[in-house]
Amino acid sequence: MTIRLHELVNKDGRALSPFVWRIKYALAHKGLAYETAPVGFIGIPKLCGGKFKTVPIIEDGDKTVCDSWTIADHLDETYAARPLFSSPQERAMVRFFDGWFGLEVMNRMFQICVLDIHNHARPEDQPYFRESREKRLGGKTLEQFVEGREQKLPELRHAMRPMRAALANAPFLGGDQPNYADYIALGGFLWAGAICTLPILEKSDPLNEWLARGFDLYDGIGHVPLYPLAA
Amino acid sequence: MTIRLHELVNKDGRALSPFVWRIKYALAHKGLAYETAPVGFIGIPKLCGGKFKTVPIIEDGDKTVCDSWTIADHLDETYAARPLFSSPQERAMVRFFDGWFGLEVMNRMFQICVLDIHNHARPEDQPYFRESREKRLGGKTLEQFVEGREQKLPELRHAMRPMRAALANAPFLGGDQPNYADYIALGGFLWAGAICTLPILEKSDPLNEWLARGFDLYDGIGHVPLYPLAA
Repeated sequence: MTIRLHELVNKDGRALSPFVWRIKYALAHKGLAYETAPVGFIGIPKLCGGKFKTVPIIEDGDKTVCDSWTIADHLDETYAARPLFSSPQERAMVRFFDGWFGLEVMNRMFQICVLDIHNHARPEDQPYFRESREKRLGGKTLEQFVEGREQKLPELRHAMRPMRAALANAPFLGGDQPNYADYIALGGFLWAGAICTLPILEKSDPLNEWLARGFDLYDGIGHVPLYPLAA
Repeated sequence: MTIRLHELVNKDGRALSPFVWRIKYALAHKGLAYETAPVGFIGIPKLCGGKFKTVPIIEDGDKTVCDSWTIADHLDETYAARPLFSSPQERAMVRFFDGWFGLEVMNRMFQICVLDIHNHARPEDQPYFRESREKRLGGKTLEQFVEGREQKLPELRHAMRPMRAALANAPFLGGDQPNYADYIALGGFLWAGAICTLPILEKSDPLNEWLARGFDLYDGIGHVPLYPLAA
């Protein structure tokens, strides 16, 4: 039976969650067929009897699984071929990477793009998004928060140095072949590219070549409409 | 034949190189016997016919191998049992970790401890160390460079968040068991502890528990005389 993947979309129908993107890559990596079911922010709690608050959620036979790490483990346990993780040690190191990428890169992308996310959300999602995120941002409006956001670009670009260092030695973070760390990071850029009206990278950044390689994977999985990621 | 490991020592005979420390851990991990040969900064270029400029260097039978990554690979190729890397993917992710740790943690430790390194070096090494490092530091004296160094501690501690995030889920960076990423990071702290007169961590930092576990490994490999790492 085909796996059903619930994914967050914005008003253009573009995939919006970096966590869903990594599962799309994971499903493609394993060669598993799936269909997507689009949902907006306020629709998520209505899915699956209200059991989950975030996407991705997959329905796989009689199992419903939420949270990208739990889903990745479920996929490797259920479908042994083409494992996402070669060993528990690799998995532990990818978890380190995930923590690093979230803290140092995605947080900064979020701070730069938060108004863009709002503006690209479905109209019915915008009030919820604004209210919940403005609370997180210490009471500033989204507009106030992103004022002068260009000045945050150098720090974001600087934070990505460890990726550049690794990719100076190998085509992918996983080495000769992409691994789940690549999917995590590619998902972050695909999320930003779906909505961010400010290009994140400089044109000369070697990360652009890795992005191109990563978007080409699996019959061009990342070739979706995006704002320019570099300028 | 016993492996011979050339290691940098300071005036107290304490092991001083974070890169040598990771090889000591690697040798212990693989259960390989070795003897150490102490050397100071200015002695390194005189070793092995002047072929190498850094330690660690190992002499293993008729092979002489320099550079910690090259040595790690040599050990796994030559002694298959108890591999350092479970897979090429794990190795690639540990290289990412190494890059991150060097850029974000060791660089900051160096900036805080550079005068301490000088003061603990063998007298005959001190002029070389001062001259070469002051050149790197843009012409400031070591004393000028570390002025107000306490103010750099919060940024160093903040930079370690990804390690704390990973270690909230597992006892070691490698997961249930330590891997080469743990050895890299433990080596950094053992290097700092050998010379740094300013404690790097707060007492409440959960990294202290991981350090204790890491120092206990392999019959207490890290139980060497150290300045307090936390205060």
